[in-house]
Amino acid sequence: MLIVKKFGGTSVADKERIFNVAKRIADDYKKGHEIVVVLSAMGKQTDILLSMAKDINPKASKREIDMLLTTGEQTSVALMAMALDALGIPAVSLNAYQVAMHTTSTYGNSRIKRIDTERINMELENKRVVVVTGFQGVNKLDDYTTLGRGGSDSTAVAIAASLHADACEIYTDVDGVYTTDPRIVKDAKKLKEITYDEMLEMASLGAGVLHNRSVEMAKKYGVQLVVRSSLNNSEGTLIKEEVKMEKMLVSGVAADKNTARIAVIGLEDQPGVAFKLFNHLSRHDVNVDIILQSVGRDGTKDISFTVNDEDLETAVETIERHRQGSLKCEKVDVEKDVAKVSIVGAGMMSHVGVAAKMFEALYDVGVNIKMISTSEIRVTVLIDDKDLDRAMNAVHDKFFPTQK
Amino acid sequence: MLIVKKFGGTSVADKERIFNVAKRIADDYKKGHEIVVVLSAMGKQTDILLSMAKDINPKASKREIDMLLTTGEQTSVALMAMALDALGIPAVSLNAYQVAMHTTSTYGNSRIKRIDTERINMELENKRVVVVTGFQGVNKLDDYTTLGRGGSDSTAVAIAASLHADACEIYTDVDGVYTTDPRIVKDAKKLKEITYDEMLEMASLGAGVLHNRSVEMAKKYGVQLVVRSSLNNSEGTLIKEEVKMEKMLVSGVAADKNTARIAVIGLEDQPGVAFKLFNHLSRHDVNVDIILQSVGRDGTKDISFTVNDEDLETAVETIERHRQGSLKCEKVDVEKDVAKVSIVGAGMMSHVGVAAKMFEALYDVGVNIKMISTSEIRVTVLIDDKDLDRAMNAVHDKFFPTQK
Repeated sequence: MLIVKKFGGTSVADKERIFNVAKRIADDYKKGHEIVVVLSAMGKQTDILLSMAKDINPKASKREIDMLLTTGEQTSVALMAMALDALGIPAVSLNAYQVAMHTTSTYGNSRIKRIDTERINMELENKRVVVVTGFQGVNKLDDYTTLGRGGSDSTAVAIAASLHADACEIYTDVDGVYTTDPRIVKDAKKLKEITYDEMLEMASLGAGVLHNRSVEMAKKYGVQLVVRSSLNNSEGTLIKEEVKMEKMLVSGVAADKNTARIAVIGLEDQPGVAFKLFNHLSRHDVNVDIILQSVGRDGTKDISFTVNDEDLETAVETIERHRQGSLKCEKVDVEKDVAKVSIVGAGMMSHVGVAAKMFEALYDVGVNIKMISTSEIRVTVLIDDKDLDRAMNAVHDKFFPTQK
Repeated sequence: MLIVKKFGGTSVADKERIFNVAKRIADDYKKGHEIVVVLSAMGKQTDILLSMAKDINPKASKREIDMLLTTGEQTSVALMAMALDALGIPAVSLNAYQVAMHTTSTYGNSRIKRIDTERINMELENKRVVVVTGFQGVNKLDDYTTLGRGGSDSTAVAIAASLHADACEIYTDVDGVYTTDPRIVKDAKKLKEITYDEMLEMASLGAGVLHNRSVEMAKKYGVQLVVRSSLNNSEGTLIKEEVKMEKMLVSGVAADKNTARIAVIGLEDQPGVAFKLFNHLSRHDVNVDIILQSVGRDGTKDISFTVNDEDLETAVETIERHRQGSLKCEKVDVEKDVAKVSIVGAGMMSHVGVAAKMFEALYDVGVNIKMISTSEIRVTVLIDDKDLDRAMNAVHDKFFPTQK
């Protein structure tokens, strides 16, 4: 089997952990597998490098920041190759140039365009474990780029896709994908399998074991992902296109506290007023989530929507700036102490009454629903922050009843 | 003018020093010069990385060590580009791949074969200061290599040669090349000029401001070097092919305590015995310096020679191993407390009596000469360690009399 294994920064933070990972790799190597390892920078190294850059120049160019950051993964792959060598496993480290990993030009947040497989294949043929830098690439100017958040996962998936690997294992500090956040709901269960689409919905709702970009890429190229723990040998969760027929209705319950509601009250009821509002916001890169529109008094209308907490300030400023112009309205209300609870499941598509079952669970524990949004495989409600734990437990218990 | 400037690790050890260097570069940039900067890794970073490697795997492969070490210069060039940018000077950092800097395959001690100038020239045309990683290169396998001791100086000279730069300035913590070691002889004078050959002789005798390899390369490609201080603006020393007619007889007095004498006593006086001795030693990479052969008692001969302290053990072991075979001899004597004193000067070639003048100076202060070796531009004597300071002062005072 050809296996791509990705380990995050925590897994290679020090000598002891580097050797823990090296031993896992050695075990699989000795079983006769071909192995490509993708690594992040050690521990907090990326943050340390970023703060060095900020200290020198708070407005440092992204090009030079990427030049600096890429030293982080290069350090961890070199040390891992040395550790494998110390265990008697032949290994070679490769950085983005050596692979080569071609990306778009954007510094700090590039996308992988193409991966050359010649060098990796040559090293695999020479029976070496190939240890590759995650998170980094090279653009058409021959400059280093970094892939942005969750970048090393994308590197692993892209390499698995390019090599037609048999498996792509993402090692994290949790041992798989759970039906909900185990810190909130103690009965949370580990999932054996989940579809790409379900994973995407879960991730976008803050249950993010994996970054969406890597899941999207895995879906596009049909790379089967396994999320497993770097600390134990439990089986983890398989992420793939189709899951078994006896699929559960709902795969998981996700929470997202990183949300705020904005209500624009008393907008002039003219054609295109909603378009104008959201067009202004999108120009300022504000991502809008749940939207609710209702008729107000005296021929006006009210529009409410949710945004991420970090976009809140920009969103409000943008609206205020246009209140004297194209967005005449009575007032702008902001509510910060709100949270989203969602149920996600590919099973919903073929089953009616899933949403109703969720609402019932919330009604049973007296949680007030402020807004609702649905997709084919997801139902999301906006509730008060203070109700979150109660809501999560009630909904989870409804769909995953505890054996008592 | 196109100027290549090289700064060592001490000059970029922290934020303050990075900005000191950046300001110097900025001054020259504002005068309209085109500037390429070559940097070493910050402070002790190379040593820190080496000890990380040793901690993971004491027998780490040189290939992986080079992969690790090259992150050091990449860090310093990125930070320098950020610092220049902060001062309003457009700058771009380039590593060995981006330049590209082609070397021989040997890891840990490679030689520069060829430097592509396309990228550097493009950046210079865009009015950018180009900040290049010293000490590193890329071999034909697309792997990183490092250049060994004094490597960053070689990088600077090679870039200056490739770009046909008008000057190559090597910044160090001393403000030029001196007539002798100022720590031993307080009347030591800074030289305005010195020839490549003189510099080579001085460097090989431990007065090494510059590594020989970079001086040899400068000589080969006719690159005028300037050695100057990164701490002040004094003029430094110019190193070139020919110096002025009114050239001093002797340019400097150099000392080298890193030496030991081995005497092989009572060798069988057969043809080829000297060849056998030095052939055995060279096979074990022992560099032999001064050699003295004399007739011993009863048809035997004695051969004495000097080696570097670090080669002493290997040299003695090698001889002992062959004493029962091809190197039959009476005994092997070792003397560790010896030092070399040399006078160096291109003027010697056309002047007689220079050596005699040196011997006179030593005789005047009662220093016993144990061995003598000469080249066209150098006279070296071996003396006791304890006589070193007295000898240095006497010889220096003979050739550079202090105005009293």
